[in-house]
Amino acid sequence: MSSDHIKVGLLGCGTVGTGILRILTENRSDIVARLGSDIEVTAILVRDPDRERDPIIPRALLTTDPQKVIESGAKIIVEVLGGYEPARTYMLAALAAGCHVVTANKALLAKHGAEIFRAADEVEKDVIFEASVGGGIPIIRTLREGLAADRIDSIHAIINGTSNYMLTGMSSRGAAYSDVLAEAQAKGYAEADPTMDVGGFDAAQKLSILISVSFGADIPFDQITTEGIEGLTPADFAFARQFGYAVKPLAVAKAHLPEDGDDPAAVTLIEARVAPHLIPSDSMLAHTNGVFNAVRVTSHALGPVLFYGKGAGMMPTAAAVVSDIIEAARNIMGDTYGRLPHLAFHKELVRPTRLQPADDAFCPFYLRFTVRDEPGVLAQLTTALGAERISIRKMVQDQYEPGLPVPVVLLTHQAREGSVKRALAVIDSLPFVTEPTCYLRVEDIR
Amino acid sequence: MSSDHIKVGLLGCGTVGTGILRILTENRSDIVARLGSDIEVTAILVRDPDRERDPIIPRALLTTDPQKVIESGAKIIVEVLGGYEPARTYMLAALAAGCHVVTANKALLAKHGAEIFRAADEVEKDVIFEASVGGGIPIIRTLREGLAADRIDSIHAIINGTSNYMLTGMSSRGAAYSDVLAEAQAKGYAEADPTMDVGGFDAAQKLSILISVSFGADIPFDQITTEGIEGLTPADFAFARQFGYAVKPLAVAKAHLPEDGDDPAAVTLIEARVAPHLIPSDSMLAHTNGVFNAVRVTSHALGPVLFYGKGAGMMPTAAAVVSDIIEAARNIMGDTYGRLPHLAFHKELVRPTRLQPADDAFCPFYLRFTVRDEPGVLAQLTTALGAERISIRKMVQDQYEPGLPVPVVLLTHQAREGSVKRALAVIDSLPFVTEPTCYLRVEDIR
Repeated sequence: MSSDHIKVGLLGCGTVGTGILRILTENRSDIVARLGSDIEVTAILVRDPDRERDPIIPRALLTTDPQKVIESGAKIIVEVLGGYEPARTYMLAALAAGCHVVTANKALLAKHGAEIFRAADEVEKDVIFEASVGGGIPIIRTLREGLAADRIDSIHAIINGTSNYMLTGMSSRGAAYSDVLAEAQAKGYAEADPTMDVGGFDAAQKLSILISVSFGADIPFDQITTEGIEGLTPADFAFARQFGYAVKPLAVAKAHLPEDGDDPAAVTLIEARVAPHLIPSDSMLAHTNGVFNAVRVTSHALGPVLFYGKGAGMMPTAAAVVSDIIEAARNIMGDTYGRLPHLAFHKELVRPTRLQPADDAFCPFYLRFTVRDEPGVLAQLTTALGAERISIRKMVQDQYEPGLPVPVVLLTHQAREGSVKRALAVIDSLPFVTEPTCYLRVEDIR
Repeated sequence: MSSDHIKVGLLGCGTVGTGILRILTENRSDIVARLGSDIEVTAILVRDPDRERDPIIPRALLTTDPQKVIESGAKIIVEVLGGYEPARTYMLAALAAGCHVVTANKALLAKHGAEIFRAADEVEKDVIFEASVGGGIPIIRTLREGLAADRIDSIHAIINGTSNYMLTGMSSRGAAYSDVLAEAQAKGYAEADPTMDVGGFDAAQKLSILISVSFGADIPFDQITTEGIEGLTPADFAFARQFGYAVKPLAVAKAHLPEDGDDPAAVTLIEARVAPHLIPSDSMLAHTNGVFNAVRVTSHALGPVLFYGKGAGMMPTAAAVVSDIIEAARNIMGDTYGRLPHLAFHKELVRPTRLQPADDAFCPFYLRFTVRDEPGVLAQLTTALGAERISIRKMVQDQYEPGLPVPVVLLTHQAREGSVKRALAVIDSLPFVTEPTCYLRVEDIR
């Protein structure tokens, strides 16, 4: 019987690796009933085999030699080491040895994806990576297969649980940024150095992968406009609420089709950014709170769809990895490979795409000015905006303490980002403006 | 080149059929770039080829002879006729001719699924049916593949857009049942005879399919407790709101694992029903309004996930059908069949399941009594409930017109449904009770 088992080797046995072993044990009968075969772990790469571990981990399988895992008879190698190296080298070695590879390593794919997928295609093996984005939400699979019939127009995603947890706290309790950060760190939702999460870089890596599988476009994550949540104040949430909006940490991508759709050389522009945004308070994304993630996709025929769930954590991430192991196992059992291109599209058949310059983004803006309360201030602000043809939809100025600088908050009609930046450069040099203006983009999704 | 095309024959060309042709035309370049091949429609079965139709439909392909479609060279036959016959006969003929079959026909699968899947297995072809549940939400694919690693615990689904549209209207505007029904009919969201939708039967058929692919259980839809939305009044929505709840048309299924999990013969009980329920006002499902559908799944490792989108309509349903055509095409191109069992599980490996008797459901209840306002009424109500060990969590009695019967509304703690029914049989025969008591189940999902 054992020779019929699907054999799997694990590179790494930290939190996610332990979760994988837990799921393979606890859900075994369901997995066998679905797959029609058992999954057997053959070897597990660790740094220190003697350290104390969860008893679910079979100690006899631990090794410090990656080659022993790759040559353990496993047909599927699971990489849960994280980081760039040695993960990249080991994955390439596993492919060269004729194994399928499953990975949750978004950073590695965002940086070295092209090389890894090319290596996989050369040896006709699959690299599967559901857990790299959205944790337990099967969003990669959905974009590659479920929505395969449709032309995807836009993505609005809450894909960083740390940022969403923090902004939920700032919004619901009026807590300060530093307090919610300390709380997130105490709960293990934020790292000691939280830059990757709060700075938007983790989300940008994930967005780069979502853009690949949604639009067939290759947009390196470090070219995506990435703004963190550090500059938000509790007042921003209160002002947004008065306008009927919530403030959420969003990754946004849109495909702007060429006007001349019949010209195969016409370029599709990809708008992409990670930043806190205002979205309508009654939208499904606005109800996505705490560490939950959600990905909203709009496409030509379907309109909006939304996928919601836990975006991180040991068990959700591990469940996504094991669903990928099952997919690889099905391909092995069905003796098929490359049913789908790794990034969903046959690159040679995709029409050309290019990143839209950030200044060309066109949306309403939330502007929070900090000014001394003097006569004529509003006239000068609106004149500077008007000079860039930016018109105003709503205004609030209701917090007021005599003698102190006051916030003036505006919601604009749709405007080009470049125009807004030029207007703010003028405004921020006016003598009565006491702080740089805070600006946030508005996405009027439902 | 044409010989490389994936050839598809259409049985039926009503709303969904027209949508399919639209998507194949409008999304062609995206589909080709994803699939690596073109999809060509070879023949289309219609009743009347001479009737006026959408110009997107190629008239030269129309035929009244089903055999011509099956023998048109198509490798994939798409059934969008609806109903039991002749759809069943044609599907079996298509399979016998060696074609893969794609269908959106939930009624047919709920009734004749076993026969059709058996016929497909005999000839080693796939029957794919994403569009049968949840329209454009890729929920079948997600349950079969995305969540394949996990043990599914429960499903809470809004899968009938008509009912959800109507209850949204009753809740948001306090409209009467008859008014929202007339409105839904005027907008084309409800049929002239709305029984299938408002009576819960459409949702029960879909739930039967969801139960199959989630739990590996075979629960015929006509054995599922099915209650319609006809008995709700605008007051129920107002009372529920006071308790912190929304009233939503839900399909609910839960797997109750046997206590002795190690005994392979121990039976898993499947709780299943379709009925309006109270759910917390701040839950994601409670925010699913209008004709939108949402399916919430909880599983062992992932916890809750939710999938939201348009559950019906020409384009969403057609997009789901075309994603199935693409899946069948990938299997043809990869020369593989039966990557997954049709209903997700290898039946011989699933532990036995049985439908839980409806009276064994255990949850909190919403009870709306209609009584004459006499001294001692509340004491007699609570005594009758107490005799069945039903305890009370909350109470409202705030609508009051002298001389008229008054509503008394209670929220109970968790109780067994059989006990509640026995208590209500006693209560409804008390002299001061002027109308049968309305009872709704409460699901405290988040």
